[in-house]
Amino acid sequence: MSSGHVVGDANSARGGGDALAFAQRRLARARELLDELRLDAFLVSAPADVRYLSGFRGEDAWLVIGRHLALICTDSRFWEQVAEEVLEFQLERIERLDEGAVAALQRELGVQSAVGFQGHDLSYASYRRLRRLHRGRLRNAGDSVSRLRMVKDAGELAAVRRACTIIEDGLEQVLSSGLIGRTEAEVAWELRAALHERGVQDLAFETIVAAGERGALAHAIPGDRAIKPGDLVVIDAGARVDGYCSDITRTVAAGGIAKAAAEVYQVVLEAQLAGVAAVRPGVNGTVVDAAAREVIQAAGFGEFFGHGTGHGVGLCVHELPRLGRTVGDVLTAGMVHTVEPGIYREGSYGVRIEDTVVVTDAGCERLTPSGKELRIVG
Amino acid sequence: MSSGHVVGDANSARGGGDALAFAQRRLARARELLDELRLDAFLVSAPADVRYLSGFRGEDAWLVIGRHLALICTDSRFWEQVAEEVLEFQLERIERLDEGAVAALQRELGVQSAVGFQGHDLSYASYRRLRRLHRGRLRNAGDSVSRLRMVKDAGELAAVRRACTIIEDGLEQVLSSGLIGRTEAEVAWELRAALHERGVQDLAFETIVAAGERGALAHAIPGDRAIKPGDLVVIDAGARVDGYCSDITRTVAAGGIAKAAAEVYQVVLEAQLAGVAAVRPGVNGTVVDAAAREVIQAAGFGEFFGHGTGHGVGLCVHELPRLGRTVGDVLTAGMVHTVEPGIYREGSYGVRIEDTVVVTDAGCERLTPSGKELRIVG
Repeated sequence: MSSGHVVGDANSARGGGDALAFAQRRLARARELLDELRLDAFLVSAPADVRYLSGFRGEDAWLVIGRHLALICTDSRFWEQVAEEVLEFQLERIERLDEGAVAALQRELGVQSAVGFQGHDLSYASYRRLRRLHRGRLRNAGDSVSRLRMVKDAGELAAVRRACTIIEDGLEQVLSSGLIGRTEAEVAWELRAALHERGVQDLAFETIVAAGERGALAHAIPGDRAIKPGDLVVIDAGARVDGYCSDITRTVAAGGIAKAAAEVYQVVLEAQLAGVAAVRPGVNGTVVDAAAREVIQAAGFGEFFGHGTGHGVGLCVHELPRLGRTVGDVLTAGMVHTVEPGIYREGSYGVRIEDTVVVTDAGCERLTPSGKELRIVG
Repeated sequence: MSSGHVVGDANSARGGGDALAFAQRRLARARELLDELRLDAFLVSAPADVRYLSGFRGEDAWLVIGRHLALICTDSRFWEQVAEEVLEFQLERIERLDEGAVAALQRELGVQSAVGFQGHDLSYASYRRLRRLHRGRLRNAGDSVSRLRMVKDAGELAAVRRACTIIEDGLEQVLSSGLIGRTEAEVAWELRAALHERGVQDLAFETIVAAGERGALAHAIPGDRAIKPGDLVVIDAGARVDGYCSDITRTVAAGGIAKAAAEVYQVVLEAQLAGVAAVRPGVNGTVVDAAAREVIQAAGFGEFFGHGTGHGVGLCVHELPRLGRTVGDVLTAGMVHTVEPGIYREGSYGVRIEDTVVVTDAGCERLTPSGKELRIVG
């Protein structure tokens, strides 16, 4: 393929009248940020933010957003796609992203304009080129633009819901046909085929299927390990619908499992329930993490839970808000995130239980409502 | 899933005695670079480089390489995986990449050590954190470490060859069963299933299937467009074997096509053959681009070929060397790259023909040797 990947899927083109209203609202919110940050323009480079604001699903495009300016800068590989997908942004036909975008920006706003860039997305090398190209003020606008994506609107939430329903249905199909004797890779493939049957081509991420001792690898790649009686099996998967992700983990028992493992399962389940119960508007993600972590620590397994309790889910499978031990964001109604504590016993087994939830006015709603009691699968 | 994706596949763990020799040789070459660049250490953050040097297939790990030091720094999610996969690097158990890696580096080499980082990989925000953590010299080592991956060794080449053979076999299976009446998305799925039958789970990238007017989108996402008689269909696909990619494009005719389109096909084919013929050691990638581009320009289609002629292929589907119109790298025997000119007629059709080749002492060998004459598929 020629340089530049494609993100997202092809299911929904640039919608109807609603799409225009959403596009205008999003652009207006980005422009409000310009005032807050005292900038003349944003250079938006992060692909998910480019998509969120402009509708463009390709890569290798930058947005230039000023108070009266909305440009999408990309090269000839994507001009036709921009015409199909983008509503509110004017196409700037360029050859090279940084040069083209800065030239357009300077033409419209002057060579001394104050420009915010996305320091978490732009590489250091790209920043250096930008610095050479633009003598005016350059400011790292951090994740300010990405934060606009945290609270989901109705259309986004509908896509996440569908992605959650489809992954749960697919997972149920796989589990109900049994696990014992199949390899991790076979199970991962069957889940993919089940999603395909439901019209979904895109995974939110590569499915994790980790049996027995491999479950202790929080990010095991499905391999040739056959699932055998007595294994705990961690399955962590997500679908992508209209670009939006779901993310769920269930740990199931292949036949009967050892008592110690069953006890650990109950600890993780209680921790996960405590985490979910702690979610509500105004609470920091660290509080949700602490609620889950305390259960695991109290049971004596604190050292075996090395990752954070959750992360936002949307156009990216990992995005804001953060729900970690030391770093978190304050939750607001409409945010979508995971709650996923785990205990990993090196060399023996792992347990992780994960839901995707949406924050509501009163607490949260699980978007992955399937059962979490220990399930024994043949 | 918890934060941090997984790259690569699970087919080959840390090999036999050869693996150790390769690992030692790679590390030795990285250390030679330290002398050239007058650095005390590299911080290697790009996942493909981390994998190449250490064998680690996960993400969220940094390497610290000094003259007598080889550390892999990662958090608890990956400690067991490091133990499985990594030979020559000592595991540094950390919580946070930048803090942990810099602390280890300073402990071993002193707070004033001169450190090279990967400016094309590290974000500006990560660089700023690094700058705060390390008062000693910090230098953008550019792509110096990534360049080590350009020339493939025997094991790498074997993996690329398998990836090429498998994608060609899979593509042949799909084409020989016919295209007319199927949607782009169905064809993409059938190719994925054909790879699965051959034991390959991982694509090098999401398959492009673009029919008729959609072929003019260089990066079309397979959609619900049904293939009909008279369509040119662009299929751009790759498999991943042991982490290594293949990349091939064939444009085929669904039944008879218009004379003008057939003529354009011949122009692209001649351009592609001219590009392949120009490949040999000592030649700059821009020369290969020019050889292909001249054919297209001479036929009057220069403005419809907007992308570069090729790119390196390896652990990444897009890597060095570059073979563009204005930017290129000098080719050396053992490099693997694509040759893929195209002509895109907006609103009508597109043609792209692409091979993956390996540079030999005398020229190059096509690793995707399947036929390139216009093929009519039912």
